[in-house]
Amino acid sequence: MKRIAVINGVNLGLTGSRETDIYGIVSFEDYIKTLRTKYSDCQLDYFQSDDLSEVVGFLHKCEGYDGIVLNPGAFTHTSMVLADTIKSLKTKVVEVHISNLFGRELFRRESVIAAACSGSISGFGLKGYELAVFSFMD
Amino acid sequence: MKRIAVINGVNLGLTGSRETDIYGIVSFEDYIKTLRTKYSDCQLDYFQSDDLSEVVGFLHKCEGYDGIVLNPGAFTHTSMVLADTIKSLKTKVVEVHISNLFGRELFRRESVIAAACSGSISGFGLKGYELAVFSFMD
Amino acid sequence: MKRIAVINGVNLGLTGSRETDIYGIVSFEDYIKTLRTKYSDCQLDYFQSDDLSEVVGFLHKCEGYDGIVLNPGAFTHTSMVLADTIKSLKTKVVEVHISNLFGRELFRRESVIAAACSGSISGFGLKGYELAVFSFMD
Amino acid sequence: MKRIAVINGVNLGLTGSRETDIYGIVSFEDYIKTLRTKYSDCQLDYFQSDDLSEVVGFLHKCEGYDGIVLNPGAFTHTSMVLADTIKSLKTKVVEVHISNLFGRELFRRESVIAAACSGSISGFGLKGYELAVFSFMD
Amino acid sequence: MKRIAVINGVNLGLTGSRETDIYGIVSFEDYIKTLRTKYSDCQLDYFQSDDLSEVVGFLHKCEGYDGIVLNPGAFTHTSMVLADTIKSLKTKVVEVHISNLFGRELFRRESVIAAACSGSISGFGLKGYELAVFSFMD
Amino acid sequence: MKRIAVINGVNLGLTGSRETDIYGIVSFEDYIKTLRTKYSDCQLDYFQSDDLSEVVGFLHKCEGYDGIVLNPGAFTHTSMVLADTIKSLKTKVVEVHISNLFGRELFRRESVIAAACSGSISGFGLKGYELAVFSFMD
Amino acid sequence: MKRIAVINGVNLGLTGSRETDIYGIVSFEDYIKTLRTKYSDCQLDYFQSDDLSEVVGFLHKCEGYDGIVLNPGAFTHTSMVLADTIKSLKTKVVEVHISNLFGRELFRRESVIAAACSGSISGFGLKGYELAVFSFMD
Amino acid sequence: MKRIAVINGVNLGLTGSRETDIYGIVSFEDYIKTLRTKYSDCQLDYFQSDDLSEVVGFLHKCEGYDGIVLNPGAFTHTSMVLADTIKSLKTKVVEVHISNLFGRELFRRESVIAAACSGSISGFGLKGYELAVFSFMD
Amino acid sequence: MKRIAVINGVNLGLTGSRETDIYGIVSFEDYIKTLRTKYSDCQLDYFQSDDLSEVVGFLHKCEGYDGIVLNPGAFTHTSMVLADTIKSLKTKVVEVHISNLFGRELFRRESVIAAACSGSISGFGLKGYELAVFSFMD
Amino acid sequence: MKRIAVINGVNLGLTGSRETDIYGIVSFEDYIKTLRTKYSDCQLDYFQSDDLSEVVGFLHKCEGYDGIVLNPGAFTHTSMVLADTIKSLKTKVVEVHISNLFGRELFRRESVIAAACSGSISGFGLKGYELAVFSFMD
Amino acid sequence: MKRIAVINGVNLGLTGSRETDIYGIVSFEDYIKTLRTKYSDCQLDYFQSDDLSEVVGFLHKCEGYDGIVLNPGAFTHTSMVLADTIKSLKTKVVEVHISNLFGRELFRRESVIAAACSGSISGFGLKGYELAVFSFMD
Amino acid sequence: MKRIAVINGVNLGLTGSRETDIYGIVSFEDYIKTLRTKYSDCQLDYFQSDDLSEVVGFLHKCEGYDGIVLNPGAFTHTSMVLADTIKSLKTKVVEVHISNLFGRELFRRESVIAAACSGSISGFGLKGYELAVFSFMD
Repeated sequence: MKRIAVINGVNLGLTGSRETDIYGIVSFEDYIKTLRTKYSDCQLDYFQSDDLSEVVGFLHKCEGYDGIVLNPGAFTHTSMVLADTIKSLKTKVVEVHISNLFGRELFRRESVIAAACSGSISGFGLKGYELAVFSFMD
Repeated sequence: MKRIAVINGVNLGLTGSRETDIYGIVSFEDYIKTLRTKYSDCQLDYFQSDDLSEVVGFLHKCEGYDGIVLNPGAFTHTSMVLADTIKSLKTKVVEVHISNLFGRELFRRESVIAAACSGSISGFGLKGYELAVFSFMD
Repeated sequence: MKRIAVINGVNLGLTGSRETDIYGIVSFEDYIKTLRTKYSDCQLDYFQSDDLSEVVGFLHKCEGYDGIVLNPGAFTHTSMVLADTIKSLKTKVVEVHISNLFGRELFRRESVIAAACSGSISGFGLKGYELAVFSFMD
Repeated sequence: MKRIAVINGVNLGLTGSRETDIYGIVSFEDYIKTLRTKYSDCQLDYFQSDDLSEVVGFLHKCEGYDGIVLNPGAFTHTSMVLADTIKSLKTKVVEVHISNLFGRELFRRESVIAAACSGSISGFGLKGYELAVFSFMD
Repeated sequence: MKRIAVINGVNLGLTGSRETDIYGIVSFEDYIKTLRTKYSDCQLDYFQSDDLSEVVGFLHKCEGYDGIVLNPGAFTHTSMVLADTIKSLKTKVVEVHISNLFGRELFRRESVIAAACSGSISGFGLKGYELAVFSFMD
Repeated sequence: MKRIAVINGVNLGLTGSRETDIYGIVSFEDYIKTLRTKYSDCQLDYFQSDDLSEVVGFLHKCEGYDGIVLNPGAFTHTSMVLADTIKSLKTKVVEVHISNLFGRELFRRESVIAAACSGSISGFGLKGYELAVFSFMD
Repeated sequence: MKRIAVINGVNLGLTGSRETDIYGIVSFEDYIKTLRTKYSDCQLDYFQSDDLSEVVGFLHKCEGYDGIVLNPGAFTHTSMVLADTIKSLKTKVVEVHISNLFGRELFRRESVIAAACSGSISGFGLKGYELAVFSFMD
Repeated sequence: MKRIAVINGVNLGLTGSRETDIYGIVSFEDYIKTLRTKYSDCQLDYFQSDDLSEVVGFLHKCEGYDGIVLNPGAFTHTSMVLADTIKSLKTKVVEVHISNLFGRELFRRESVIAAACSGSISGFGLKGYELAVFSFMD
Repeated sequence: MKRIAVINGVNLGLTGSRETDIYGIVSFEDYIKTLRTKYSDCQLDYFQSDDLSEVVGFLHKCEGYDGIVLNPGAFTHTSMVLADTIKSLKTKVVEVHISNLFGRELFRRESVIAAACSGSISGFGLKGYELAVFSFMD
Repeated sequence: MKRIAVINGVNLGLTGSRETDIYGIVSFEDYIKTLRTKYSDCQLDYFQSDDLSEVVGFLHKCEGYDGIVLNPGAFTHTSMVLADTIKSLKTKVVEVHISNLFGRELFRRESVIAAACSGSISGFGLKGYELAVFSFMD
Repeated sequence: MKRIAVINGVNLGLTGSRETDIYGIVSFEDYIKTLRTKYSDCQLDYFQSDDLSEVVGFLHKCEGYDGIVLNPGAFTHTSMVLADTIKSLKTKVVEVHISNLFGRELFRRESVIAAACSGSISGFGLKGYELAVFSFMD
Repeated sequence: MKRIAVINGVNLGLTGSRETDIYGIVSFEDYIKTLRTKYSDCQLDYFQSDDLSEVVGFLHKCEGYDGIVLNPGAFTHTSMVLADTIKSLKTKVVEVHISNLFGRELFRRESVIAAACSGSISGFGLKGYELAVFSFMD
């Protein structure tokens, strides 16, 4: 049975309750449940924090996993700390962004962690997480 | 039954026979067959051209489709013509790149069509096409 | 009797049917007819192609004309090929843009062919073509 | 009867007497007379000043006009004051430049007022003013 | 007997008849004949097209050659498509430019294909092609 | 009998003994001998110095020559002094680089002397010197 | 009794009558009256001009004042003349902007006079002037 | 009774004890007391943290407030996390900086949160907090 | 007898009374008197204005002069209007700056009028004006 | 007896176990022991955290120390927070980097804290810490 | 009696014999003689070298002089070595350029030594040296 | 017994006698003596030159050494010649700078040789040389 970590960074605990025009009205907790039901042959561990060092700490503990799905939120655009941490891992990390980064404000168009990730998925709403999980299936 | 167009741009007719360390050894024709078998409830039309105006022409004819999966190859980085054409379409276009653009040469890191696409998938090898097709399923 | 070539580049065959909020609802074929009626003492030859090499080929054949009215569409912003071709001509070329380039997205604000043209007209809708034709009258 | 304001900015009072290789030998006063004769069904009010605040003041009084033809001279390249003033007007402003800005020195290639104008005409000599006036006719 | 492909890109079919102050008065057809006579122990195949996709297609067929001499014309400065195509070849490509790129307009100073070529020759007029052919001799 | 000066700049006295993976194992002294034998109808004078002012001084004395072949080594990328000196000469200077500048580190891609030279040859190993000498032959 | 100068630059004489969605419907004359009533223990002198040299002249005469409140309008973004004039004063100058500069067009985000001012207030509508006056109270 | 949150970011707990030439000798705790006395009809809640995630967490809990006064300290210049968090709030945020950002080192001149705030106050020492609080009064 | 115009731009009427550490304590009126005494065989006409259009107007009237000495003050760094006016003159203009522009703030290091002037003198205090006058002597 | 603080930032707790090709196989805990033995006349206090605010907090408590040796890890390249904190200290801080920053990826070449430190040591492996400690000895 | 050093850098030994359209036909040796005659109450020592280290060495020996007149030639644009050397001197250095740097090629417009000099004179031909000498007279 | 070369570049022969506020009052000759005494089990060879080609020549002769300590002075910031020479060596080079480059003028913050060196030490005064020597000890 595969083990996949799903990690959300800063402000993503608010999904479903704020800026719903961009991020939708489904809370991530509800969404992950649906995902677990659909991908029952796979263990999906979920972690969210607004604290960068907690995200780093969680990644440090992810070595045994078969894959990591990471949406860093606003850490995406400047956090070289995160980029470094991902590079130090042996497990593959797939970057997910709910909205299409490239269709938004200029500073959102750059991802400093992209080069450290094995793949990148952007613009599919919450479904992007499913695509990322799916990418780790055979 | 859903109809999805899969479009490959310049040099992507060579997949499977050249630079196999980056692009793999499976020819795209073989890959698309596998995909059609797996997604049999869906019509997958495939088109490839090294000629930008032919890709534009094909996109002009794609209005009736439920989704477009587009890997523009080297058109990705400079072709505003393609960006304009995509913007003029009502059908959603998902951009796919076989390798992780962000881990390669600098000029490959920019996609001038990304802002015109609804979503972007990069770095999953040929499986990226499947993720894109999958994104159009309910 | 003066002979003037009117040349439209990529995606401009769609004028009147797509993105009508920007480009209007009149098809260019209808518009050119009106123009021919109004400027009956002048031969207006019209050419449109989504293929850059066809536009180049048409320009190569334009030497005998008294003037060239050119709207290159999205070729405007990057095509040094077009700039070179225009520079090699003895006939004057007037650049026309339907919308005001300067009021739109950043990348649309640059025209790499402008320096090769004798004049530039931008922001007058289809009437810009008439202004260009008019500029070749005595 | 239409009322159109024709406004020339700094140094354009010298047209016809200096740098005649670039700007020609016809004085603007003579030119505007010819234009008034040709467009007799239209009131052409002419104003020139080397003083930016006078140009701004004249624009403030232009609300009742059907159109404004503006050649700001060297104000073109840096005057955000002019850009702001144009934006605050309800009357459309067409920007005219005697020479082709894009074929000259680098700093002349940028117009900070272009985005505030409805249209832009450049490179047609004094005839550019006629094209601009013509653009306000039906 | 060595086989060498000589490929000219856009507008280079006009050599000898236009902008003769820069490109000289000898037509390329005449020049290639002289070259064939001089290098009779070597097969020189010549191809010219204004269409980028045709140049790409010709390069795709060049695998068996001992060397490729390529003057891409204005494709030189922006065509990543060409750069990608050259990189995918096993045959060495030598880039030739008739005039000295570095002594002309700024945008002509950059060659996006140079890094993909094995060597670069610029500024020797038509003789540059001979130097390139000569470079493939033992 | 033609007289051609071959000038090597800084660190090029080490050719054949250091960084042989880039610059090869043939010493330049040996190479120039071979060249003199092959082009026996031509006087080849060779000069090398790690001192910029000596290279400048040698160029000052080159007026009588029929051609100058110059590989400035690392002076290539910043020495405006060299550019100025070349510009002040009536004899044509051909710039030669052993490796393909464009395939190496970023700063090596710029040649500040290129615009002052009549031609440029890069990426052919020591054979580049022969191509340069050959370019001065009729 | 404190004396404070309130100075408005170009186009700010129109406040209350144009672009009311950005600048509001209250005329500045009415606003300054209210302010004078509220801060009756303080002399508020008001000056407005669209002419930069008049603003400069007024600032030259402000030495005796206890404080200067300055909204330069579009002079904010390019007028080094104003910056120089402010630097030459001994009286403190507080810069006020009605709208939040940082939430508008890019060029509005820079203030070349900010470094010369003692403080900066932006985004509070007309109330920003009161905050500035208030900042000079004990 | 209005409720206003006053939030200080990293290193601002040291105000009054370090770098007193820039930040003054009054501790912020003392200052806030004075402010509470002066604005007794208003509830001023104060929070300080050197930890970005705690500042984010506090902002998440500020929805019920009538206004937020925020001095992010060095988070000002790079924290897109903070910018995102502010954008997600319905309560208005006023940015305060003790010293005049624009008169200091270059990197301090940019505020990445400014565009997300409704207003900005800079350069008034601790009094800037009072101006911000005052801006929320009627 | 030679006629030389000495023109001072914005804020230079204050020389001798403000920022005396940079500009000295001698008023320009006193200085010009000394200069007239020393260069009695030459007519020195002095003009100062804080108004750019007045400086332009004065330059328009300077055609008959043998030389123009111009210190534009803060107009130096942005006024293309001045650059254009100087270019349109037949009389030579020498640019003078009291302090060494290059040793001050960054923005002061650029002079947009320098290219239009025949010569430039900077950093000699008031003596720079004498050097400029002297440069027009035989 | 001297007291020196040795502080390691994010991911540096992993030294010795990950990316050992870059950072070596010795754990920092072991290394610091060796250092303490060698420099027994000096108190070496060690602190590591992946949390920026904890590093800041530790620096706040370092005032009494005779020297601080700081390797901020990936905080080096963007953390102005750290730069500010270091500037506010009276104790000297020496920046240490295990690998040579300048020989790695581009973004690693900039240190935003360098200007706040008294000295910088880079590229000596773990020995760099010893050099830093040694620099505080007499 | 004043002692003034006049120093010419690289290629300036050729003045009068090469590129005479820019630098004139008078040799510098002749010019300095005329200058010595005219300024007979002053000792003018002249030094020229194409070797940067010799110019540096000469400057090192100039401490006793009353003034230094320096035309560095092409060293002007990149030599920080020269800038550093000038900064280390107590004697004032005046920079002279024969032609107007600002009217020539772009790279010539920057002087990296200007900030280290007390004054700068450009565009007066050989007379610029006289102006510089004159500037050291009382 | 280890042999270490200590090399000082341009202007560093003046240490101890000029700009003593930055570089101190100890002459380098005295300093190297102290160092030799302290590190008596090691041969320290010292070389200084203001001439870049002599520094290059000395480096060419350093192959047998166990380590090279290099302070290039102002060559640091632009000399690619030095960078190239260092790269061609097998012996490790440690770069030393007396002052903290990062706390000085902007152009001093870049070292073009850093990437070629194995380590870098900056800001420790003359002690930096000792740290460098020490780094080569076991």
